[in-house]
Amino acid sequence: MSASVAERPTTDGTENEPTKTGPEAVREGAFGNARSLSCRECGTEVELGPHYACPECFGPLEVAYDFPAITREEIEAGPRNIWRYKALLPVPADIEQSPNTEPGFTRLLKADNLGRELGIANLWVKDDSTNPTNSFKDRVVACALSAATELHAKVFACPSTGNLANAVAAAGARAGIKTVVFIPSNLEKPKQVNSAVYTDSLVAVDGNYDDVNKLAQEIAAEEEGWAFVNVNVRPFYAEGSKTLGYEIAEQLGWRLPDQVVIPVASGSQLTKVHKAFQELIKLGLVEEKPYRIFGAQATGCSPVATAYKAGVDAIRPVKPDTIAKSLAIGNPADGIYVLDICRETGGAVEDVTDEEVREGILLLARSEGVFTETAGGTTVACTRKLVEAGLLDTSLETVIINTGMGLKTLDAVSDLVGPAATIAPSYDAFAATGLSS
Amino acid sequence: MSASVAERPTTDGTENEPTKTGPEAVREGAFGNARSLSCRECGTEVELGPHYACPECFGPLEVAYDFPAITREEIEAGPRNIWRYKALLPVPADIEQSPNTEPGFTRLLKADNLGRELGIANLWVKDDSTNPTNSFKDRVVACALSAATELHAKVFACPSTGNLANAVAAAGARAGIKTVVFIPSNLEKPKQVNSAVYTDSLVAVDGNYDDVNKLAQEIAAEEEGWAFVNVNVRPFYAEGSKTLGYEIAEQLGWRLPDQVVIPVASGSQLTKVHKAFQELIKLGLVEEKPYRIFGAQATGCSPVATAYKAGVDAIRPVKPDTIAKSLAIGNPADGIYVLDICRETGGAVEDVTDEEVREGILLLARSEGVFTETAGGTTVACTRKLVEAGLLDTSLETVIINTGMGLKTLDAVSDLVGPAATIAPSYDAFAATGLSS
Ligand SMILES: Cc1ncc(COP(=O)(O)O)c(C=O)c1O
Ligand SMILES: Cc1ncc(COP(=O)(O)O)c(C=O)c1O
Ligand SMILES: [Zn+2]
Ligand SMILES: [Zn+2]
Repeated sequence: MSASVAERPTTDGTENEPTKTGPEAVREGAFGNARSLSCRECGTEVELGPHYACPECFGPLEVAYDFPAITREEIEAGPRNIWRYKALLPVPADIEQSPNTEPGFTRLLKADNLGRELGIANLWVKDDSTNPTNSFKDRVVACALSAATELHAKVFACPSTGNLANAVAAAGARAGIKTVVFIPSNLEKPKQVNSAVYTDSLVAVDGNYDDVNKLAQEIAAEEEGWAFVNVNVRPFYAEGSKTLGYEIAEQLGWRLPDQVVIPVASGSQLTKVHKAFQELIKLGLVEEKPYRIFGAQATGCSPVATAYKAGVDAIRPVKPDTIAKSLAIGNPADGIYVLDICRETGGAVEDVTDEEVREGILLLARSEGVFTETAGGTTVACTRKLVEAGLLDTSLETVIINTGMGLKTLDAVSDLVGPAATIAPSYDAFAATGLSS
Repeated sequence: MSASVAERPTTDGTENEPTKTGPEAVREGAFGNARSLSCRECGTEVELGPHYACPECFGPLEVAYDFPAITREEIEAGPRNIWRYKALLPVPADIEQSPNTEPGFTRLLKADNLGRELGIANLWVKDDSTNPTNSFKDRVVACALSAATELHAKVFACPSTGNLANAVAAAGARAGIKTVVFIPSNLEKPKQVNSAVYTDSLVAVDGNYDDVNKLAQEIAAEEEGWAFVNVNVRPFYAEGSKTLGYEIAEQLGWRLPDQVVIPVASGSQLTKVHKAFQELIKLGLVEEKPYRIFGAQATGCSPVATAYKAGVDAIRPVKPDTIAKSLAIGNPADGIYVLDICRETGGAVEDVTDEEVREGILLLARSEGVFTETAGGTTVACTRKLVEAGLLDTSLETVIINTGMGLKTLDAVSDLVGPAATIAPSYDAFAATGLSS
């Protein structure tokens, strides 16, 4: 890989320095069917490598492919993880041979109880809380790890709102590559420990995620051979979220749902679920049909919902203040694309208060036995609000994506629930609780 | 289901009262290919129902089957969860239609890094931490839920060391059946919250697990229509652990491993992995071959390891004192069968200190990116000790079962790991940490 393609400001508005990688050559087929990195704004194509901004217009780069014909049967014959879709990802054909966390192919649960609560006739929960480190981030990190390996990176790194740090530290441990992960210093304790168990190099930064992200961009520009998953190998990383879209379609029996509700931080995941649906249509793997995509944010960090509601095209950065820390990105790189997609497909972007987030967590737990984190509480609560506002059609087949898990944000609900009684170990003590029938 | 078969003392040494269920008839095929409940000690068969002790000799009852011919292809065509093995479980043919948590088919990870650390040439980790409520208990609970439903139980209940409570409360919420779960009042906070999010009826009991278990047996005898998963429907419940054995064999390519290391609390899981291997051999689904089964306990609650090392057949109950609370059963119902199996197969039962448990957690995290709870730390640490003692053959293919996940026992390691540095958001501050390259 030859180093240093000059980069320019990203949509984050941050400075964009050249990024440096190792001197070794990239092997044939390192990125599978990927052809190039293509600018989302102007279509300029640049060679596959650690680049993330268009040399012509500063727009974000995205992986472009030359797909061969791909059949449902070929995919179904693959492993029960994201690598069943390897032909659609920027990874080599022998990806299963590299040690990785083997994420994906999580449950798609028919959620009739929750549907009844929300008044939605046909509801599903795509439950990504059962991934290896319990969030959808294992998907994107697996793709970023492949790129980092193929580009001969020496350090695997990220700025993170928490879940990404967990996923990077775990994947790096398993792959045997040095990891350095950066988090806001006020992050929830479980997410801190859940990174520190895997790596000696967890760095807490006094600042919010946007500060941490900016620092990561500086470091990426200075250091040789560092692959920051969501900075200089972001185009490869982001493709991992497509697998959520592929799985939803395959698990519905190779069919697209009518509506999907997705939490939004940087906005990457939402844009990639849409990309996945478009690819499946183009490849003839599902029938073309209309679908609506909805974004979910916490009011305390809702720059995309705010722009959506104001009917404007530009995102105004905010200082986050919400318990949904995993969604606390005040300056979202892909926010404008989220706006485009939600508007074009007839969806919307909604936001809910921290109180509603907590209620969303409990509602999902009590109705479907799924304990989600604040991000999932946000998604459930936004779904309820979208129904109440008449923006979500309750007669249509709807999928909610649960992207994370509740033990990581335990404090969000630990004051709301607890033992009904504490008793002595005797039947009489039990009978006195009123719980006997 | 006609009620009340008189029961006698179990191997727990506790009193055994008749258990009562609803008056409704059990439907045809409610228990699939199961034929009867058969006494593990004397072979007496009793009808399928909420019975758990032999009317002749007080021995524990176990599900007996009349299996039809079953092929690998039929299993492989099934869903990607434990119901692919439904023909081998006491569940109806339409089990997938009942709302349940859809557990199982978790990762079997090739663990070369951990193997290198332990000196084992060919090592795998069966990772059950990615189940719906993050422990293997989702498997057994799914089978118990089916039995409870078919027997028209009104309440779904358990005494628990923590993980079982999480699994019962979640599965009950999803199935829409009232749950009441009993735990020792000193249980880890994450495990308490992770039950209370799902149910209003979490009951903390001042006492250890054995006290809670005894109370549950009293309640089971008093109340109408309560299905205690690990008491009066225990035979059905326990069968769920067989799926761990089936999956290991299927994921190895329909082949048995040479050695398996399994944590032991009541001992149920270990005995069922062995039963699964035996069934696969009898059904011709794998080739017959010798294998060794090893049990793992924490020294602070090691009644089975103690009996194993003393060369005796009887288990002497202990008062647990260990951080491995999920394994803290001082009077293990299936302990004597664990002894039998480990001895017959050429395995052993080992135990490790709490300090070694913590080291085991970190070793697994750092080598394979898997964050386990204290039970998994126990298993990893016992594996190391078994290697050092020459009891485990390092040249043979070995599987370690990771039964639970680290966020549930966060405090076990939260003092041992943390950020390497807390810095201001500037490159200079980062450079000063010494982490730059
Ligand atoms: C649990 C969870 N859900 C959703 C998101 C949002 O992802 P994106 O940045 O792709 O919008 C994050 C991001 O950190 C997350 O951790
Ligand atoms: C995580 C974990 N592992 C292992 C066990 C032991 O299971 P058994 O009682 O079947 O021996 C338990 C029991 O609670 C558990 O929670
Ligand atoms: Zn451009
Ligand atoms: Zn008997």
